[in-house]
This record gives sequence, structure tokens and C-alpha cells, in this order.
Amino acid sequence: MTLEQQFTEHVGKMRAYQEALSLLYWDLRTGAPKKGVDLRSETIGTLSSELFALSTSDSFGELLSSLEAEKDGMDVVLRRSVEEARKEYDLSKKIPPEEYREFIVLQSKAESVWEDAKAASDFSMFEPYLEKLVSTTKKMIGYWGEKNGSAYNTLLDQYEPGMTTEILDEVFGALRGRIIALVQKIADSEQKPETGFLFGHFPKEAQRDFSFQVLEQLGYDFEAGRLDETVHPFMTTINRHDIRVTTKYDEKDFRTAVFGTIHECGHALYEQNLSEKLSGLPVETGSSMGIHESQSLFFENFVGRNDKFWSSNFGLLKEYAAGQFEGVDVADYWRAINESKPSLIRIEADELTYALHIMIRYELEKGLFNGDIAVKDLPQLWNDKYEEYLGVRPSNDAEGVLQDVHWAGASFGYFPSYALGYMYAAQFKNAMLKDLPNYDELLEAGNVAPIREWLTEKVHQHGAVKKPLEILQDATGEGLNAEHLAGYLEEKYSKIYQLN
Amino acid sequence: MTLEQQFTEHVGKMRAYQEALSLLYWDLRTGAPKKGVDLRSETIGTLSSELFALSTSDSFGELLSSLEAEKDGMDVVLRRSVEEARKEYDLSKKIPPEEYREFIVLQSKAESVWEDAKAASDFSMFEPYLEKLVSTTKKMIGYWGEKNGSAYNTLLDQYEPGMTTEILDEVFGALRGRIIALVQKIADSEQKPETGFLFGHFPKEAQRDFSFQVLEQLGYDFEAGRLDETVHPFMTTINRHDIRVTTKYDEKDFRTAVFGTIHECGHALYEQNLSEKLSGLPVETGSSMGIHESQSLFFENFVGRNDKFWSSNFGLLKEYAAGQFEGVDVADYWRAINESKPSLIRIEADELTYALHIMIRYELEKGLFNGDIAVKDLPQLWNDKYEEYLGVRPSNDAEGVLQDVHWAGASFGYFPSYALGYMYAAQFKNAMLKDLPNYDELLEAGNVAPIREWLTEKVHQHGAVKKPLEILQDATGEGLNAEHLAGYLEEKYSKIYQLN
Repeated sequence: MTLEQQFTEHVGKMRAYQEALSLLYWDLRTGAPKKGVDLRSETIGTLSSELFALSTSDSFGELLSSLEAEKDGMDVVLRRSVEEARKEYDLSKKIPPEEYREFIVLQSKAESVWEDAKAASDFSMFEPYLEKLVSTTKKMIGYWGEKNGSAYNTLLDQYEPGMTTEILDEVFGALRGRIIALVQKIADSEQKPETGFLFGHFPKEAQRDFSFQVLEQLGYDFEAGRLDETVHPFMTTINRHDIRVTTKYDEKDFRTAVFGTIHECGHALYEQNLSEKLSGLPVETGSSMGIHESQSLFFENFVGRNDKFWSSNFGLLKEYAAGQFEGVDVADYWRAINESKPSLIRIEADELTYALHIMIRYELEKGLFNGDIAVKDLPQLWNDKYEEYLGVRPSNDAEGVLQDVHWAGASFGYFPSYALGYMYAAQFKNAMLKDLPNYDELLEAGNVAPIREWLTEKVHQHGAVKKPLEILQDATGEGLNAEHLAGYLEEKYSKIYQLN
Repeated sequence: MTLEQQFTEHVGKMRAYQEALSLLYWDLRTGAPKKGVDLRSETIGTLSSELFALSTSDSFGELLSSLEAEKDGMDVVLRRSVEEARKEYDLSKKIPPEEYREFIVLQSKAESVWEDAKAASDFSMFEPYLEKLVSTTKKMIGYWGEKNGSAYNTLLDQYEPGMTTEILDEVFGALRGRIIALVQKIADSEQKPETGFLFGHFPKEAQRDFSFQVLEQLGYDFEAGRLDETVHPFMTTINRHDIRVTTKYDEKDFRTAVFGTIHECGHALYEQNLSEKLSGLPVETGSSMGIHESQSLFFENFVGRNDKFWSSNFGLLKEYAAGQFEGVDVADYWRAINESKPSLIRIEADELTYALHIMIRYELEKGLFNGDIAVKDLPQLWNDKYEEYLGVRPSNDAEGVLQDVHWAGASFGYFPSYALGYMYAAQFKNAMLKDLPNYDELLEAGNVAPIREWLTEKVHQHGAVKKPLEILQDATGEGLNAEHLAGYLEEKYSKIYQLN
């Protein structure tokens, strides 16, 4: 066997474990029976541990070294695959296998406890698990070695290469000022949209049927995926041709399902449209969390909250909504779904205030890892920050600190990617308009294909062959720039609220 | 670590792989997207191969030998666990790992092809796969070495220890004569039940809701399981506390779902009621395929087709059936669901003719493995035998040779267990009546618990600690005896058809 064949075989085996693990998690969230959860956690721990052993074996390390010696003659897909495998290898190799296994079991149990704690709205149930998740993650950072000067920067770099608190403090600082100014103007505006008609009773089955229609329309391939219901919506890759999405149905607010589904669809379209050339290799994945999020947010906001998208789809929605929108004009509907109002729940937040939710989490995480904040103080600090930035205060843990699953999975450093993705998305939109000046007309005609194809050409197909800033530069001709997002928000909300 | 701890750890790891594999299969049958099937097959192949390596490792072999040297001091659960592990070890050790892996991949692909072939009613699509499945199984028998004098006996022994074609030819021969005589009398009887009211339109959702009610009533634990829909119903153990069942809904014949669900529930009750003492060990499973089938058939026939069970449940069925049974008397309903009529589909066969379906498959398998029958001749032979034994002839492959999934999974030698299970079940029923002479009154009162508890005490709890004939002997005081089944059928059908 050539070195390349050996490599392909080894990463193929790792992929098989990853498929099993993804399915074990998916099943746990979509309806696995309660009593089986403890054994399921053990199973996940065992298989993760085996995968860990495969990805850190000495023989794989030697194979990588041999391949690296030949990298000048390699095509870019293989070369980048070897680089990604090396990065993961070095990251994993430093953790003792038994500690890794315990960490995975802890995460799996913590997710289950988090669900119960959220249902009971009781942070104290989840607190000991979160304590342990933070302390174990700190221990891992000790093994990895600090990157870019702080514990938290080490975590940031894993999701978005090169990202630091210094950069984020600056970008978020600038953005925060402009968003808060807008939020203030909106609060003072007398031109508020009517929204009462949004909250009729919209039966779950009808919401599900409409969600299927929208997914179909956006180009989601149901022969290579499926839609299910979970407490917290997500997209997961089971295998290259099995990319699943989930959503959540709130019968009193259909927006949760509709925009949640479109959001996850954006993630799924990325994975469904990776180039076949990447098949089975480590680069057969998104370029970074931020770029991934740029795709979900692009579809959620620049497609799903666009007025022309609804010119084309409001009639369909009406059919499923059984009278709820009778007599409602599409322009009023569009203003209503774009209402901006400081609120408590991130995934239900509007486009404008969304980034503030992220900044709060970012500041808390930074404090947890740089030693300024203790786990037990989180509920109080969380609530205080919501009051400070958004002017609203959670009345219980379920609508406060327990709302997101991320910390239960030890995904610290992940949240900032949401805001970065938002900035990337605004930059893509701006660049796309040069190639597709008829963007709005396409949406009005219900023809999403050219938009999706632009994203496939510039983003999706490349997987992790290109790094985030390379994708951004090649697609837009510039680097990270918060101006596009800020300008877009100012223009859109000035129109909706008739601001001066 | 003590030897026992090492053993527990090793089989615990094997269990984790088994859980992943069971879920990968379950998902494949309950709704995995079509385009992901090829990669899924690869994944199943890889993990099966890893499990195979674990179960045949030299170090595990040495551990088993060390444990066997100490077996006099062991408690029975550990001793039987070591015996079962040894049996599997010796069986697997003889197959070259790469061939094993290919065999598993073949089965997985064949199941998918079988589904398509059945949908297209085209045996020729499936034929090359079946050829390969038979020839590969023969090769495996070559590795294992023949047992009890023939290739097919080797397979029988794996499902039901000690079973041979000699025994089956005799028992089936006796039973066949009595069943065919009854079938003849019934054909000549003028007292046939009215059945027209069985075939109204019974919506799928209502059937599903009724199925949930019945499962609940029989004592199925939904916190340790779930019910889904598949082409071919089955029960699967994901883990000790996650025992799933599936069923199939035919809107023109609700019996498919109701009796299918009750059947799979019988399997599930066995697994849900294994003693906690067997936790994580190789004996935490049914004693044999025949004993397992005795539990599903017990519930399907001796509970589900009992007149008093319907005295208690016909009202509930009427509620879900929306008018279908209006004006129908429960006695007429009971006669109708017990109509005996030679038919084409095994899983829809009545109690009386069911065993004839098994005998046909048994004879064909025996011929395939003893060299008398070629795969290509199966459709013709299948149809001929149906005409000979049952007087009906399939008009296409879907209702003929393609109806069962078993061969696609290389489960040759499995079918006879269904008929054995039937005989065991009749023997259990006979013995149970001594302890629960009020059996019919219990069912009439909707109180299934004492019946289930009797089976748990005598059968379920022991798992594979006791061997099949030991369970039978301890529970009934006798060995295998077809008389109880034959007598039961004669009495029941004489009543329904008023035979002399």
C-alpha cells in the first residue's frame, strides 16, 4: 500500500467510529428511552476512547511524519488533509487516554442532567457538572499548553484559528456600540410593527409540514438527510450522504420552528455540498465554526428574514396556518417577524440583538477561564448582564443561564463563532450582490438555487481545504470587517422602524 | 484486577460495540436516508470487524482459559457467562478476520437490496446476493467444521443447541399430519366466521395509538423502549434498558399491526425482565431463538388471540376504529380474527397454518445446504410447496420467496425456531394453568400481570443462564412434546368451526 492508501484507510476507520458516535448522540437527543441513558453514556465513552486511540496511535503519528516528508509533491486536498490530521493528532496526543475517556463520559452525562435541570429550571442540579466541566477543560488546557497568551485564547483558537480575546474585545466593542445605539432608537420609535397575529395557535403537525416544504425549497436533499424534533435544534453529519437536521415546535410561536429549521438547513447545505473530491478525508468538513455559522445565519437572516422571500412564501405559510394570518398584509407580516425587542432566549432573538446575547456569553466564558468568575456566580452574573445590555432580566434559570446546551458539552470558546459567522455572512452577502444584483428578484421568484450555488462555489465545496480567512478573502476580496454587518443592520432597521 | 474484573471489563467493551451496531441497524430500518446506505454499510463492516477482533483476541482466549481453570468455585452466572463466551470465541476464532468483515458488509448491502427487490417484486435483483450469502455461509461451515453430521445441522445447532434435521423431520412430520387434517376439516366446514368487518379503513395513526395502549397493558416499559414503524417488524436490544420494538401498519388490515406489535412485545418483555444479576454479562440475553420465539408467540396467540383478552379489549379497539366494528359482537369478532385460511404471507398467517409456512422454509434451507436445491430454483420450488401444503400459489416474488428478511441477513437455520417456539409456548401455557387456573378470568379482567410474572419467574429472569431444555423441564416438568400444541389447535379450531 502507498502512504496515501494507508492514510485513507486509517482515516476511513476513524470516520466509521465518528458515524457511530454521531448516531448515538443523535438518537440520545431525538428519542432514546430515559432508562437507557446511563449505559448509552458508557457506550459513547468506550467508542470515543477507541476513536481517540486510533487518532493518537504511534503508528498513525509515524505515517503522518512520512507523509509530511513528501508534502511538496502532494495535491492540495491531500496536503491539507495531512495538516488537519496533524493538528488533531498533536492536540489529542497530549491528553492521557483514560482522562479523555472520563471527560467524554462526563459530557454525555452532563447533557442529560442539563436537560433535566432545564426542565426543572434549577441551576443547582447542573452546577456540580459545570464545575467539573470547567475544571477538566482547564486541566486539558494545561496538557495542550496555552496558546496566544491565555487559557481562553487556547479555546478560541480551536474553533477559529488565530482568534483572540484582544481581537474580539475590539470587534465586539465597536459592534456593541452601534447595536445598542440602534436598540435605543428603536425603543424610542413610535413606528412599532403590529405583532399580535404572530402568536396564534399553529399546530405542530402543520408547522412540521411547512418546515418540510421550506427545506425542500432551499435545496435540502431529503434523500441524504431527515428532519426530527429535539429540545435544542441542531445539524449533524452522520455520514457524507446522511446530513440530519432537527427543529423545535412551539405551538404558540411558529417562528421558533421556521427560523430554527432554516438556520440548521444552512449548516446542512454546507455539508451536503462539499466536493466529492474530499470524500472520506479529514478536510471533508466545514472550514471553521465561524464559517459554518456564516452559512446558517446567511440562510436564516439574508434569506429567511428577507422581505422578498416572504413575497414568495407568505401564501404557502397561510395555507398551513389555518386562518392565523387572514387579512394580514405581507409587508406587515415582514415587519412583524423582524420586530426587534430585547429578549431572554438567544435562539429566539432577533437579528439585531442576537450579537448582544453572544457577547454576554463570551464575557462570562472569558471570566470563567481567566479566573475572574466562579461557576456558582453564573446565574446572578448572567442575569445582571442581560439587564445591563438588553434591559431584561430572566426570572428563572431555564430562561437564563440554563438555556443553551453548549457548556454541557464543554464547548467553551464556541459562542464567539456565532457572532463571527454573522459578520462573515454580511460580507458574503455584500460580495454576492456584485455577481447576483438581482438577489431580491430571485427570492421573490422563489428561485434560491443561484444563491445556494454561489455559496457552494465560494464556500461549501472547499470544505476545510481553505482556511477561514482564505475563504473570506477569495470570496469577498477583503479580510474580517464588521462594517458590513453594522451597515446592514442600520439600513434594515431604519426602514422597519422609520428611524432618522 | 481479578480475573472476573478483567472479564467484566472486556465483555463490557464488547457490549458497547454491540450497542452501536444495534443502533446503526435499527436506524437503517427505521428511516436512515437512502443515499447514506453505502457508507453506513462500510461503517457497520468496520465496527463489526472491530467487535470480531475483540471477541477473538488471543488475550481474551487466555483470559477464558484462566477462568475455566477456576470454574468450580464460580457462581452459576459467571460460570455460564464464561461458557457462552467460550462458545462464541471458538465459533468466531476459526474465521479469518477479513472474510468475516466482508461477510458482514455483504449482509448489510443484501438487506438493502432485498428491500428494493421486494418493492419491485423481482427475485432476480436479489438472486446474486443470495447466491453469495449461501456460498459464503457454506465456506463458514467449512471453517467451523460440520456438527451433527451435516452442513445444515451445524446451522441449526447455533440457534437451538442440539437440534438436528432428524429431530425436526420427526416432530414436523407428526405435526404436519394433524395440521393438514384440521385444515381439511375446516375447508369442509359450513360454519365459517364472517370476516368482512375486519377490512375497513383503519387509519395508521389510530392503529398506532391502539398499539401503544396494548403495549402499555401488556407491561411493556416505555421508559426502557420505544415503538417505530418498519417494513418488517422486529425487536432489538440497544442496551439492557433500551429494548425497542417496531411494527407495520396496513390500513386495510389492522391485524398486521396489532398482532405484529403483540408478537414483538413478547420478545421485548423477555429482554426487559432479565434479572439484574446478569447485568453486562454474555448470559444477559435469551436462552435460545426457540425460547425467545416461545415468548413472542405466547403473547401473540395465547394472549392476543384468546377470547377473554378481547372481552376486555374489544371496547377499546372500537374506540380507535371509528365505526368499523359497529354492531359486531365480540364473539363474532373473536371467531373472525381466528379465521384459518391457507395464505401466502408467513407473518400474517393464522395460528393453525403458521407452522406449515415454517416447514416450507425449513425444507428449502435444508436442500440449499445439503446440495439438493439451487438458489435460482427457489421461486419455483417455493411456489410449488405452497401449492402442495397450503393449496395456494404466490403470483409474484414479493408475496413468495422475497417476503422474509432472514436470508438477506444470512440467518439460515433460524426459521425452525419459530415452530419450536410455538411448541414450547403451548407447553408453558399448559404448565401455567396449574398455577393460574383462573387464566381466562385474568385476561377477562385485563390483568395480564400474573401471567407475565409467571413467565418472568420461569423463563425471562434466567436469560441464558439456563439452557432451553432446562428451562422447559423446570417450568413444565417434561421435555419437548408437540402433543400440547396439536391438542390445543384441535380443541380451539373445533370450537371455532364446530367440527366433529
